[in-house]
Amino acid sequence: MPRILRINTKTKEYSFEDVGPYVNLGGRALTSRVINKEVPADCHPLSAENKLVFATGLLGGSTAANSGRLSVGTKSPLTGGIKESNSGGLFAHKMPKMDLLAIILEDKPAEDAPFSTIFISEDKVEFKDASDITGMDNYPAHDKLLEEYGDKLCAAMIGPAGETVRQTATIQFTDPYKRPARSAGRGGTGAVMGSKKVKAIILDPAVNNKVAAADVDAFKTARKEWVGILQGHPVTSEGLPAFGTCVLVNVINEAGALPAKNFRLGQIDHAADISGEKIAEVIESRKGKTTEGCHAGCVIQCSQQYNNAKGEYVTSGFEYETVWAFGANAMIKDIDDIAELDRICDDKGMDTIEIGNTIAIAMDGGIIPWGDGKAAIELLKKVGTGDPMGMIIGNGVTFAGHAFGVDRLPVVKNQSMPAYDPRAVKGVGVTYATSAMGADHTAGYGVTANVLGVGGTVDGHKKDGNVELSKNLQVATAAIDSMGFCLFVAFAVLDAENGVQTMADLVQSYTGNTFTADDLVNLGVNCMKDEQEFNERAGFTKMDDKLPRFFETEALPPHNVTWDIDENELQGAKA
Amino acid sequence: MPRILRINTKTKEYSFEDVGPYVNLGGRALTSRVINKEVPADCHPLSAENKLVFATGLLGGSTAANSGRLSVGTKSPLTGGIKESNSGGLFAHKMPKMDLLAIILEDKPAEDAPFSTIFISEDKVEFKDASDITGMDNYPAHDKLLEEYGDKLCAAMIGPAGETVRQTATIQFTDPYKRPARSAGRGGTGAVMGSKKVKAIILDPAVNNKVAAADVDAFKTARKEWVGILQGHPVTSEGLPAFGTCVLVNVINEAGALPAKNFRLGQIDHAADISGEKIAEVIESRKGKTTEGCHAGCVIQCSQQYNNAKGEYVTSGFEYETVWAFGANAMIKDIDDIAELDRICDDKGMDTIEIGNTIAIAMDGGIIPWGDGKAAIELLKKVGTGDPMGMIIGNGVTFAGHAFGVDRLPVVKNQSMPAYDPRAVKGVGVTYATSAMGADHTAGYGVTANVLGVGGTVDGHKKDGNVELSKNLQVATAAIDSMGFCLFVAFAVLDAENGVQTMADLVQSYTGNTFTADDLVNLGVNCMKDEQEFNERAGFTKMDDKLPRFFETEALPPHNVTWDIDENELQGAKA
Repeated sequence: MPRILRINTKTKEYSFEDVGPYVNLGGRALTSRVINKEVPADCHPLSAENKLVFATGLLGGSTAANSGRLSVGTKSPLTGGIKESNSGGLFAHKMPKMDLLAIILEDKPAEDAPFSTIFISEDKVEFKDASDITGMDNYPAHDKLLEEYGDKLCAAMIGPAGETVRQTATIQFTDPYKRPARSAGRGGTGAVMGSKKVKAIILDPAVNNKVAAADVDAFKTARKEWVGILQGHPVTSEGLPAFGTCVLVNVINEAGALPAKNFRLGQIDHAADISGEKIAEVIESRKGKTTEGCHAGCVIQCSQQYNNAKGEYVTSGFEYETVWAFGANAMIKDIDDIAELDRICDDKGMDTIEIGNTIAIAMDGGIIPWGDGKAAIELLKKVGTGDPMGMIIGNGVTFAGHAFGVDRLPVVKNQSMPAYDPRAVKGVGVTYATSAMGADHTAGYGVTANVLGVGGTVDGHKKDGNVELSKNLQVATAAIDSMGFCLFVAFAVLDAENGVQTMADLVQSYTGNTFTADDLVNLGVNCMKDEQEFNERAGFTKMDDKLPRFFETEALPPHNVTWDIDENELQGAKA
Repeated sequence: MPRILRINTKTKEYSFEDVGPYVNLGGRALTSRVINKEVPADCHPLSAENKLVFATGLLGGSTAANSGRLSVGTKSPLTGGIKESNSGGLFAHKMPKMDLLAIILEDKPAEDAPFSTIFISEDKVEFKDASDITGMDNYPAHDKLLEEYGDKLCAAMIGPAGETVRQTATIQFTDPYKRPARSAGRGGTGAVMGSKKVKAIILDPAVNNKVAAADVDAFKTARKEWVGILQGHPVTSEGLPAFGTCVLVNVINEAGALPAKNFRLGQIDHAADISGEKIAEVIESRKGKTTEGCHAGCVIQCSQQYNNAKGEYVTSGFEYETVWAFGANAMIKDIDDIAELDRICDDKGMDTIEIGNTIAIAMDGGIIPWGDGKAAIELLKKVGTGDPMGMIIGNGVTFAGHAFGVDRLPVVKNQSMPAYDPRAVKGVGVTYATSAMGADHTAGYGVTANVLGVGGTVDGHKKDGNVELSKNLQVATAAIDSMGFCLFVAFAVLDAENGVQTMADLVQSYTGNTFTADDLVNLGVNCMKDEQEFNERAGFTKMDDKLPRFFETEALPPHNVTWDIDENELQGAKA
């Protein structure tokens, strides 16, 4: 039976509980319900009243392809609203093998308490002294944990950014290649873990219970159908495996929707230098790997291993959004600089989107020159060291904007925008504006119909149809995140007639509970409602569901499009 | 005829206009109406769309005692809401002598444009190169302006904090003693002036038109009555003149309501060392001045001149809130250190309340030791220099809290609380919570009935009656600020049967327009409505009209009182 493990980080007490009121929930639907029901909406995100929830999806632990993603939920130190941050890695697949549906960290120790490592075994939780890895970057700290716990290590951890409660701090997770390279990236979840003085959580390598589908035959059938769907779509079977997510650099640049120079341009001249095609070429020439999965059971394999010129490992999970943030928005042309910036972000434990945008703000504010990758590297190295500049950079775009006196801040709910200009890709612009998460492409990826022609076509330059597009995608995404699927399955599902039904069949046959296509939609809708409810209680209104005014007043070249969807129209995208 | 002068800081165009729709408004009622009607509520406070309004009160330029205060209005960079910041000095009294009711700065030049000094003459506005005073502290810059424009200089100016758009930046005004010692202190008005690249505004010393009351005899009668009221009350005729506002240190400490150590205590042992009595003693021994007025026509004279041990001038306008912020909340016991901190704030152009609280946050976050005045001085010196620590300190409590990882932040709407603990002085706590300005004692000074027994008595430890008390005081204060009166007249008015009628008589006889006691109340109510309306459009809700949760959960010694007025009850204090 799946259980919920509650751990009090102050008293070090814990309890393994029945799922109780959280039955039939998983992943994001579960984390958002717990946060909405258990956390005072007006508490300070770093106070004892906030909680940090790790949840596996409804299909967690199963052999359904691409169902091993993890949801991390909390009240966000960055946005002040609810947050679900989604990660690959081994954690979500391992939890069900320990009969765990969710782990909830509660309360917090005194400010001057030392950091602990929490070791979770089958029926026991131990707090261990973490002084040997406190202050260490994620890669070396993870190496020490590997030494101590062996090759089957499955860890969640924070770097110096999380320890110093920076608002961009991630939680990093062990990937299938013994690296802490997967991130719950957005919204500062790592700062909440840091405020609770937890450096790492380790799932006992010795526990590995068998997890079986309730209806083995039905699950097998659905699973096969499912793999067919994923492998039958060109995006999930060709584009992503060949070039990773960076395949999008050229695509979005061609579309004139690649935000550059702090969202002043929609196209850059140096796209070829930072494109997926170029990166694949570099990787191959340096004997890296162009395809890897981020979690067990992945058939898409959009990750990679990027080496330096000497053939030494630098980074993986080298995503389009990362390359865009540093390469286009901060105008850094050297792909090796960008790879090093990505690695520093993983080592310090910082969101690459927020940090890349913050570097652009530092450039806009005259702190370092536009495009100067080496100067950006030096700035990032200051985070977590006690250096005041590191405090600023580590706190993201809005904070840095106030520090550097920059008033053009591409944020919604204080979270900065990813790699698609909302003026040219209005479907994703609506998502930026209305998602409870703040500006977040993964909450409703309108790029599909706006640019890629997946799931139909909606003109990204015009407002018509984009509110509806975003709403439908937001509901679908909330469901996908709740089942534990990788978001990229959506590409295939949107173009497959039997996509939604097959996902529902997988859940029903795996859990043994009736689960129809309608239930799947309701899972998404109810998840969004939990999130909206929490934010409303935290004081958010429709005035927070807006883009900054400069998107309305400044036209984006080369297509000279502006943002023109007002706050009342935007409310149509809410659940 | 009074006129409104609009100045476009980008094009350098200007126009002298009729008051038009702003007829019968003055001071705060005028600035808040202009901001509400003309500024997009969702603009960035440092963007071209924000405006900065200087307005004299309805009695501005008259000989009515204590009617020479100035209102500065804008969208606040600190709170994101509307702001009226009130100052003494010569500006408000001089404007009517140039037939000016208000000056409105609009638009803004390019980021890299140089700073200008705006010289306003009778029918002409000149932009002068300010490069000789750019980057200079207020006192030396003001001395240079004195050299250039002579002893009749009447200037508004910003220091390095305003130039670098810090969220605590003040606008400083020439006082009657040729010093830039009076501040529009709260909410970062100086940052808005800095964003518009205006270092100083100078009112032509050569223009000094005669201002006469419409009904000279009636005005004379009312004026005499008015002086009698002010001189008949012990607070305005004895307490404030003898010891300045610092007379409150001992009073509030005795009441157990003096917030100390970042609002952890309500009483301190070293109150005598920083009391008004002690300060007066030091001033006399060093041949300073214990009584001065902050503006022409003041009969209360609560300001002073504080010298160092060598007898050299250090500071004036050395207010209770300043002494409290550094002396009690940051636990700095040396009054000379506090005086130097006050001077640095005036020189850099920073709000002493916000900065004193920020120093307490730096101490709480372990950046400097509790009570270390010398370390605090070093921190303040960094503001405006390009040093990242200065960027943090200069941005106030909420910002510093996010930088230093402190989650106990005594703020409402991001503005930090002044010198009265809301748990023990609930009348002012209601004002902190509900004022459109953020935490602001001057918006509705419930200390009167809670502690001083002025205007009746309401128990400050219990909630009963305090919502009503605060609302009445908020309305009265908005009216007082709109007439141009110093807030301290309220002490006398609250205990004088003919107080309100006499103020109304003054306005009617001076302006020649019918103005009853009811009109006076409506002036206050409508002003508050403008402010609330703007904030609502900016996205504020009743969730923003709350105190931080720790006031509910932590009891304040020595009386062990907590905050217990919920958000629905609090709405009763809104207009």
